[in-house]
Amino acid sequence: MKVAVIRRAHFNAAHRLHNPAWTDEKNREVFGLCNNPNWHGHNYELEVKVTGEIDPETGMVVDLGWLAGLIDREVEHRFDHKNLNLDTAEFRHLNPTAENICVVIWRILREHLPVQYDLHVRLYETPRNFVEYPA
Amino acid sequence: MKVAVIRRAHFNAAHRLHNPAWTDEKNREVFGLCNNPNWHGHNYELEVKVTGEIDPETGMVVDLGWLAGLIDREVEHRFDHKNLNLDTAEFRHLNPTAENICVVIWRILREHLPVQYDLHVRLYETPRNFVEYPA
Amino acid sequence: MKVAVIRRAHFNAAHRLHNPAWTDEKNREVFGLCNNPNWHGHNYELEVKVTGEIDPETGMVVDLGWLAGLIDREVEHRFDHKNLNLDTAEFRHLNPTAENICVVIWRILREHLPVQYDLHVRLYETPRNFVEYPA
Amino acid sequence: MKVAVIRRAHFNAAHRLHNPAWTDEKNREVFGLCNNPNWHGHNYELEVKVTGEIDPETGMVVDLGWLAGLIDREVEHRFDHKNLNLDTAEFRHLNPTAENICVVIWRILREHLPVQYDLHVRLYETPRNFVEYPA
Amino acid sequence: MKVAVIRRAHFNAAHRLHNPAWTDEKNREVFGLCNNPNWHGHNYELEVKVTGEIDPETGMVVDLGWLAGLIDREVEHRFDHKNLNLDTAEFRHLNPTAENICVVIWRILREHLPVQYDLHVRLYETPRNFVEYPA
Amino acid sequence: MKVAVIRRAHFNAAHRLHNPAWTDEKNREVFGLCNNPNWHGHNYELEVKVTGEIDPETGMVVDLGWLAGLIDREVEHRFDHKNLNLDTAEFRHLNPTAENICVVIWRILREHLPVQYDLHVRLYETPRNFVEYPA
Repeated sequence: MKVAVIRRAHFNAAHRLHNPAWTDEKNREVFGLCNNPNWHGHNYELEVKVTGEIDPETGMVVDLGWLAGLIDREVEHRFDHKNLNLDTAEFRHLNPTAENICVVIWRILREHLPVQYDLHVRLYETPRNFVEYPA
Repeated sequence: MKVAVIRRAHFNAAHRLHNPAWTDEKNREVFGLCNNPNWHGHNYELEVKVTGEIDPETGMVVDLGWLAGLIDREVEHRFDHKNLNLDTAEFRHLNPTAENICVVIWRILREHLPVQYDLHVRLYETPRNFVEYPA
Repeated sequence: MKVAVIRRAHFNAAHRLHNPAWTDEKNREVFGLCNNPNWHGHNYELEVKVTGEIDPETGMVVDLGWLAGLIDREVEHRFDHKNLNLDTAEFRHLNPTAENICVVIWRILREHLPVQYDLHVRLYETPRNFVEYPA
Repeated sequence: MKVAVIRRAHFNAAHRLHNPAWTDEKNREVFGLCNNPNWHGHNYELEVKVTGEIDPETGMVVDLGWLAGLIDREVEHRFDHKNLNLDTAEFRHLNPTAENICVVIWRILREHLPVQYDLHVRLYETPRNFVEYPA
Repeated sequence: MKVAVIRRAHFNAAHRLHNPAWTDEKNREVFGLCNNPNWHGHNYELEVKVTGEIDPETGMVVDLGWLAGLIDREVEHRFDHKNLNLDTAEFRHLNPTAENICVVIWRILREHLPVQYDLHVRLYETPRNFVEYPA
Repeated sequence: MKVAVIRRAHFNAAHRLHNPAWTDEKNREVFGLCNNPNWHGHNYELEVKVTGEIDPETGMVVDLGWLAGLIDREVEHRFDHKNLNLDTAEFRHLNPTAENICVVIWRILREHLPVQYDLHVRLYETPRNFVEYPA
């Protein structure tokens, strides 16, 4: 009787899409306005889905207070009000596209989640553009 | 050519998370504010997903009027403006966590849904906390 | 150059609409399902609007961190996960309709807000029913 | 490392549910108000999900500008501010239920999407009624 | 102590913007896609705001059940799943722009609302385009 | 018979709150995380409200296509995917708080709006923090 529990969170950050192996011209061509060297930013909305069995004693899959605290400590504290390219180790050498941010958040949380749970992450860059991992 | 049809509904209810096999202290420790003996409550939002083949005559998987009526009769009428712990047979001896409410609603609707359809239920306890069954 | 600043917050609570001066029958007739003696509940969403001049040094009308903290301390801490009728001094003898809750929140916040600011409160009982004070 | 990328779009259209093989009476009985011979309409919201590998050079699964342009050209331009039954080749002989519109949009986009990507479409007819294909 | 109470409702309808005193060319020029002679449509969302004193006996400005019933009877029943131009007396000779629909709804409801209440109507034609009367 | 017409738009930008007349310490104390020298960012949502008489010939207060184009040209094009502090003349010497951005947008649009219309601007920095001018 597997149930999925989803918790929403958010963080605000600046970023720039850029591939240092390319010329400036190719970067502008591929990334368009997102390549602005002076950065731009987003209100990122995050949905963390944890799947597992209901514990018959608590009636819960996972303690939502614990999960909210984990997301706060490991994701919001790390990325909120940051420049993803400059201020974080994760994106110093990795292009902070929504796809890459989503996978990075999945890896960070996966390490802290007991092995019996499945984990999925959905990340909204804007209300009209969002990504999911694993697909 | 299977298509899924989703219908949203809602109900407002009071509840308390509590395990009678535990001491009051352990209940407060595990369930926190949700253990308040005087109850608290939520606007529950429900998404009922029915999956099946499109009927070539109607162009529909299931008559949405029928589905909305079923949810109204079997879920909204049963739980809306109720105290889940005191007023419903389903949660007299079952902890009304979002997980358990979601599974209970799935079982109620499953009995009334013809066997050729698959059923999934998503339940929002708040806009930031929600669950799905089956996962 | 007056600007309004709005901060959203929320709390979850149980309540019952009831006038002790009336018979049970009249209470049921006027308040319907909201008169359930075993309570029901809501996710209340709150919008607190503070209007004033922009401070030329900060570029802000009011420090949003301070405002969020004030709402947390004075409103969320007081009402979240509570039974409004039983657990709060404000509604022991006042019917906790959305209208009355809105006015009570306005009065609580008004006391803590410097006199040069105007204050308006909007309270959502559900996404389809909400109230504003002053109108 | 498959990631899903979702893009939202929308279009406003008129339609009528009707099966010409049936009597008027049966059409009214099955389709109710949606059978109105003078049409009614909706703001359709569309979510197009494309699943594939992250390209290590761009950090993206698919160029969102390209995807948004494809949806604009092939879906929005075709259906926006149209009468689906009268103005479009797709629904001249196919009942424009949400289910059928969703499958038609999937087929249109599938033709234009490179074969290595998976495609899913979610279509909202109203905020409370929506469909997904494939399920 | 005036409080405003707001109730949301909705209806789905088809319409066409057209001024019969103009040439077809001028109609297309002014109304663009909205002039499609085969109609298009929308999910209209409505917010009805009623302002008045709190009744000390009920704690309410107006009975929300009564208000919801009034909107259902006088607005939703009249316009839902209709072609505004063809099926309604109100728009047979009046262009069904969002502005005109909003004023018409205000006039209909005003007749049924006791004189001590103020009335405001907000009408969403889409989530990005909406109107208010009186302003 | 004055009606208000509201159009939503959005732009994504980076910014930093900072007063160059203050010490770094005071800037951090007053602006907190928003003072990050490496910037952070937001998805800004904008509501532009134009109030005026309904033109009896068109049934409209203002042509929404014209208004959407004006906002696109004068606001979105100017601020979208920009660093407000570095890339815009407006905020080179003005702190880009939500309050100041809102007033600046009002002034830009006011110049282009015929004098018979009233103008109000609401700006969301996040879904929980927003401002309005004039109040």
